Amino acid sequence: MPRSARMTKAVRPYLGGQVRRTVLPSGLRVVTERMPHSRTFSVGFFVDVGSVRESPNLNGASHFLEHVLFKGTRRRRPEEISAAIESVGGDINAYTTKEHTCFYARVLGDDADLAVDVLSDMITSSQILSREVQAERTVILDEIAMHADDPVEAVQELVTSALLPQPGLGSPVIGTEQSIAALSRAQIVRHWQRNYHPGSIVVAAAGQVDHDHLVDLLDRLGDFGRPARRPHVPLVSSGPGLDRLPLLSDRRPFEQATVSLAFPGPKLFDQERFPIGLLSVIIGGGMSSRLFVEVRERRGLAYGIEAGETSYSTGGLWSVDWQSSPDKVEEILILVRAELERVAEHGVTEQELERAKGQLRGQTVLSYEGPQSRMARLGTAELTGDNRTVSQILDTYDHVDTAEIGRIAATLLTRPAVLGLVGPKRPTKRLEKLIN
Amino acid sequence: MPRSARMTKAVRPYLGGQVRRTVLPSGLRVVTERMPHSRTFSVGFFVDVGSVRESPNLNGASHFLEHVLFKGTRRRRPEEISAAIESVGGDINAYTTKEHTCFYARVLGDDADLAVDVLSDMITSSQILSREVQAERTVILDEIAMHADDPVEAVQELVTSALLPQPGLGSPVIGTEQSIAALSRAQIVRHWQRNYHPGSIVVAAAGQVDHDHLVDLLDRLGDFGRPARRPHVPLVSSGPGLDRLPLLSDRRPFEQATVSLAFPGPKLFDQERFPIGLLSVIIGGGMSSRLFVEVRERRGLAYGIEAGETSYSTGGLWSVDWQSSPDKVEEILILVRAELERVAEHGVTEQELERAKGQLRGQTVLSYEGPQSRMARLGTAELTGDNRTVSQILDTYDHVDTAEIGRIAATLLTRPAVLGLVGPKRPTKRLEKLIN
Repeated sequence: MPRSARMTKAVRPYLGGQVRRTVLPSGLRVVTERMPHSRTFSVGFFVDVGSVRESPNLNGASHFLEHVLFKGTRRRRPEEISAAIESVGGDINAYTTKEHTCFYARVLGDDADLAVDVLSDMITSSQILSREVQAERTVILDEIAMHADDPVEAVQELVTSALLPQPGLGSPVIGTEQSIAALSRAQIVRHWQRNYHPGSIVVAAAGQVDHDHLVDLLDRLGDFGRPARRPHVPLVSSGPGLDRLPLLSDRRPFEQATVSLAFPGPKLFDQERFPIGLLSVIIGGGMSSRLFVEVRERRGLAYGIEAGETSYSTGGLWSVDWQSSPDKVEEILILVRAELERVAEHGVTEQELERAKGQLRGQTVLSYEGPQSRMARLGTAELTGDNRTVSQILDTYDHVDTAEIGRIAATLLTRPAVLGLVGPKRPTKRLEKLIN
Repeated sequence: MPRSARMTKAVRPYLGGQVRRTVLPSGLRVVTERMPHSRTFSVGFFVDVGSVRESPNLNGASHFLEHVLFKGTRRRRPEEISAAIESVGGDINAYTTKEHTCFYARVLGDDADLAVDVLSDMITSSQILSREVQAERTVILDEIAMHADDPVEAVQELVTSALLPQPGLGSPVIGTEQSIAALSRAQIVRHWQRNYHPGSIVVAAAGQVDHDHLVDLLDRLGDFGRPARRPHVPLVSSGPGLDRLPLLSDRRPFEQATVSLAFPGPKLFDQERFPIGLLSVIIGGGMSSRLFVEVRERRGLAYGIEAGETSYSTGGLWSVDWQSSPDKVEEILILVRAELERVAEHGVTEQELERAKGQLRGQTVLSYEGPQSRMARLGTAELTGDNRTVSQILDTYDHVDTAEIGRIAATLLTRPAVLGLVGPKRPTKRLEKLIN
């Protein structure tokens, strides 16, 4: 393909790094950040497919596909994929979220070409043999059981399914036992061909990276996949109706209760995410937050308690989460509701806001120290069409004032909430009354 | 104190970094690695106290103490400790192991003095008020319940208590409900005074660090604590007798079974740790290991399976660990035993060994990329008297040959093993027969 057809955007300032972006003629996007003193190369292939667009009978297909793409290509047997990276001391892995799938590797700088070759091979040339689909199906059914054994994951699933629309954001990434048992090899192959094509993929890399060389390597992939129009799965952006029950509980014989008090929250690009982000820090971010000091430090009622938003392109929620002795759930919920009402009524102080801004700013800089986190930020931002730099985002936080936080707290914290509860005791009538 | 009394050791080569070490007149040791391009400062105070030397009635005291040192000093109220670090966007936390306790913080370079001041304050000038001890006691009892809800932690506790001596290495770091309920404020204060003194503490830092300035700050602490002779807790270095039962199971209503097949293993400084480390990689390190390929990739019997050693100064174990459907435990155990017998009899191939060396070398370089991991390595190495550089350690791995691995495999894998099992089913008689 003619190199002149490539579009390369100017360098963006990004926390002092050197970010470059190229769109290949095939439509594949390449975003890199060279970190001159890094000895390692982190690369991720971000694919625009996740559970959000899966119809009920395809629920879990994106995650299932992520698994089977590790199971052999035309050039590599299954064990040769991981062996290629691990034998040079690198890591290779993948994850699926509601909105995207990511395959990534981290190697020493000298092994960059190998990492790109292995990931490209998996994504474009997997074999998806029937016997591998069968073996992986039982692995995923085991994974569903493992999720059920993790009370934090179980309670998140409860509140997500209640507050976000189904099918769509409210459906589990991993699928259900029924959908996984029923998915055929043909459905998985079709899901792959339709959703894995150059126009749906962003390759992000950071560390010891040569942008032009990476672009050359990826250019050779040419075209692949058979993009189809997105299936018509409703992408409802508001939550379900208010006829839901406020209490969602799953009685399981754990020692501790795991609790999430959740509200309809901001979407990824909502302007209100900025004041809500700062509000989250003040209410439940870290060990100096209002709730941590009150519940853990002053009263020793729980090992930890935190608050924060979970935001997607088309929906989101905001929650307060904790684990505690089952007989302290009511006492803690009363304290939490009282604190939220106080904030909704009186807002936050200037001093709290300044501290929260410092906390967010410092944590952002700390969290982007290494190549892996920068690669992940570059890839997801490009995939979601987020062209703000981290500095711009920090500036926007800096302009939030206490009045804006007060307004958003009064709105957010008085929305009808749900309570997710996983633990050994049957919830009391009283608990249900305490939720709203 | 006169600066001339300080001993500063020459720079050690360490993966290209600049390591400096100073022993203060008080006995406090300071080890730093300056990473010129880092914007952050990671610091840890490593204290030579953990559960290994606790008598039964003090079991859990080191960890309890770690908690209460966050609860206020003469200069800072409890919430001001975490707030001081979090308001500048840093992290502060601590952990306790069987052999040491570590308090650490990570901040931007400009906030280095603040981080050192807060940690110094906690370690030398805590108040340990009665009401804070009481509040924290209930938090730790909750933490014990949380551990019981985590099947991986529960199964590790089972095999550790069986293979390592009690009291000592085999005792739980967190203590027991009985010991935690009974520990008095006076015992905790005495445990602090006896074990927290300059001679028992290493301060390690990495990133944007000025060694001389850090040494000045720490010099001002002078002397503190009232070191006592170590209480006479037996430090048995061999495991308990062979009259233990080979099957240790805890029937809990999880969906999945969590399993650990464990053997008496190498101590931290045993020469056999090198061949055993490589053997672990070949048998169960990563996704291209023998067991992962056989159990997960070929047969889809479990989500993952891994093998490796857990080594302490005075003891250790080696184990194969997995989670699976309860009705597949026997089938997997048969495969694992067959693989271990194959290795014990036929050793490993040259090709496997070369790949394992590459994997260990690369992962070591990758894992020491950031300041936090370098700081942790510096601190624990100094505390345990380990004066090898990472390069020296890698060189020793490089000199291991297949004959040495064969010899060690024949010894290690034919030792009498125990099986830890946490899951919903009662173990069968057949399972017990499969263990050895």
